[in-house]
Amino acid sequence: MKTAKDKEVTEKLENVGKTILSQIEKGQNPTFRLPLRTLSNVYFDEKTGTIKLGDKMADRQFLNIAHSRKFMQTMLVAAEIKKVIQEEATISIRDLYYALKHTIEGTQENTFEEQSESDPCIEDIECSLDLLREELHLAASAKGIIAGDVLIKDGKDTIDLTKMGSGGWSVPSNVEPDRIEFKKVNAEYVLFIEKDAVWRRFNEDQFWKKQNCIIMTGRGQPGRGERRLAQRLNKEFGLPIYVLTDADPWGMYIYSVIKQGSIALSYSEEKLATPQAKFLGLLTQDVEKYNIPKEVTIKLNNLDVKRLKEMENYKWFQKKEWKEEFKNMKEKGYKLELEALSKKGIRFITEKYVPEKIKNKEFLP
Amino acid sequence: MKTAKDKEVTEKLENVGKTILSQIEKGQNPTFRLPLRTLSNVYFDEKTGTIKLGDKMADRQFLNIAHSRKFMQTMLVAAEIKKVIQEEATISIRDLYYALKHTIEGTQENTFEEQSESDPCIEDIECSLDLLREELHLAASAKGIIAGDVLIKDGKDTIDLTKMGSGGWSVPSNVEPDRIEFKKVNAEYVLFIEKDAVWRRFNEDQFWKKQNCIIMTGRGQPGRGERRLAQRLNKEFGLPIYVLTDADPWGMYIYSVIKQGSIALSYSEEKLATPQAKFLGLLTQDVEKYNIPKEVTIKLNNLDVKRLKEMENYKWFQKKEWKEEFKNMKEKGYKLELEALSKKGIRFITEKYVPEKIKNKEFLP
Repeated sequence: MKTAKDKEVTEKLENVGKTILSQIEKGQNPTFRLPLRTLSNVYFDEKTGTIKLGDKMADRQFLNIAHSRKFMQTMLVAAEIKKVIQEEATISIRDLYYALKHTIEGTQENTFEEQSESDPCIEDIECSLDLLREELHLAASAKGIIAGDVLIKDGKDTIDLTKMGSGGWSVPSNVEPDRIEFKKVNAEYVLFIEKDAVWRRFNEDQFWKKQNCIIMTGRGQPGRGERRLAQRLNKEFGLPIYVLTDADPWGMYIYSVIKQGSIALSYSEEKLATPQAKFLGLLTQDVEKYNIPKEVTIKLNNLDVKRLKEMENYKWFQKKEWKEEFKNMKEKGYKLELEALSKKGIRFITEKYVPEKIKNKEFLP
Repeated sequence: MKTAKDKEVTEKLENVGKTILSQIEKGQNPTFRLPLRTLSNVYFDEKTGTIKLGDKMADRQFLNIAHSRKFMQTMLVAAEIKKVIQEEATISIRDLYYALKHTIEGTQENTFEEQSESDPCIEDIECSLDLLREELHLAASAKGIIAGDVLIKDGKDTIDLTKMGSGGWSVPSNVEPDRIEFKKVNAEYVLFIEKDAVWRRFNEDQFWKKQNCIIMTGRGQPGRGERRLAQRLNKEFGLPIYVLTDADPWGMYIYSVIKQGSIALSYSEEKLATPQAKFLGLLTQDVEKYNIPKEVTIKLNNLDVKRLKEMENYKWFQKKEWKEEFKNMKEKGYKLELEALSKKGIRFITEKYVPEKIKNKEFLP
């Protein structure tokens, strides 16, 4: 069943074609105008608190030998997406690449050699039409899990996220409002957990029930679906998002992506990032605060130190609380995994560490 | 709530301790007897069709300087597992490592330096007591998804796998009968799909409904939970398991693990492997059969060729159908991804390729 969104997207795609067609009819050089997606056009917007794409534009022209291959590819991708929406299907970006790959008749030339050629075309269409790839019926990989007192309508199914047993509901790639509707949300906050294994500890203890919250994991760096879902829960229901990761530069970067977004997806971050997200832990400062034995800390390696230096330079980490934590991590020379809290007892993390931090509002901004 | 299985496991663990204690009381050298888990003691059992551990045994002795560290570690792990079961919790193997890591009083010596020291102790306990690690309340990573006309009882929750929307139910790590009970299974077979993105295509098309089957994915090499679930569906309900992977040595090895098991887990394969599983595809032979354009095939690289050679030597691949396929792959010099079928149309895989193969019983053994 085509949604209103599908009709809007189809129209936008058709307009791209119509514009090109009218240029041809007028004897003009067929030109596709799109935002410039280079680092020089990416910035951190202090006002919204998200990474954004600037307003520099570029023209992709058919009659420019440096552009014509990319022009052809962009048009092929746009046409295929329209077809996919018409067929009421969702495909992966790898499917799209294969569906379009062929040797152009009468030549030895392939339309695409690698998926690395079709992916940027998708991104170009996303940002020039101001659409998410999910709205283009393209599925990103989704690997998250969620549980809590939430009732979701997904197609014909009504899904009760309190009744997912030990498994949890697998978050789909597309959680746009025309696909995923929240029928009920009874929770005070969302706990966004870096690791799958830790999420399972929280789920086994029915933390979401005891603390009246929603527990989510993105299994490492979260996918678009998980991030969009967190944003929707924050925007539509005013739920705070608390992020729980390892105390290392990689965990803290996961937080940074949930909150501010990433440079690679700058053009979509207004729809994916949650600037209100807060960092619950772990911190290397927790080692002394909670009297965690040094044996379970891990010495920073060269890669950690290098990444930490990069993080210190990010504009959005220029806050005194983060400067303190980064300083402590460097001085102590160690990092700490969430599982290390098991040293303090199997349920230390679910019964003491997280509830106390939330009760005392001990967050990093 | 402790299950009968929990009581049985606790008793087995206590018996380990009691045996050691009685040896000490008699002034004997404390000794833990366990199956030898080296390659020389692993074999392929033609009768059961699974990889197995042989009957060579080894003794781990406290008063042997080469054994004493490992002896101490094994006892620590056994004791902690008993504690975890008592606390009615499930923890990850990383949690276990951290929970047990400490500097031994009066020394500079740590009980464990790396998780690579505690993991083998878990395996030793598993195979010496003939238990799965799930029965020891240890969670392995589980990343699979499932959908179909199945009603599952998981703790207090009854979960209807027809009503999981676009997400699916996330398969937990522990699917033992005392945790996961099948209340209803209405399906003719299980389709076990290598890739998440492909599973989503099948789920979107409600393939499980149209074909009256269960669709599962292990997202690459499946975890223990997914394999055990497939085995249970096969054993308890007689459902055939059809495996769908890329046509490359890696996909075919995934099939091999589902069917025969792996060398690393040889001691558990009787409980994890499904010797009745059949290989549905892809095959490189499908390229000609289904007239798939050569542009979407991928040239074999050196690693592929090396892996293929290893596979050709496995005992369980000594069947004429597999020899033919391996020969074809080598001669053509290409491999093929599941997504490449999108070249034949978005729904070619769900509406033609898989249904036809099943209808015509075109499987590899």
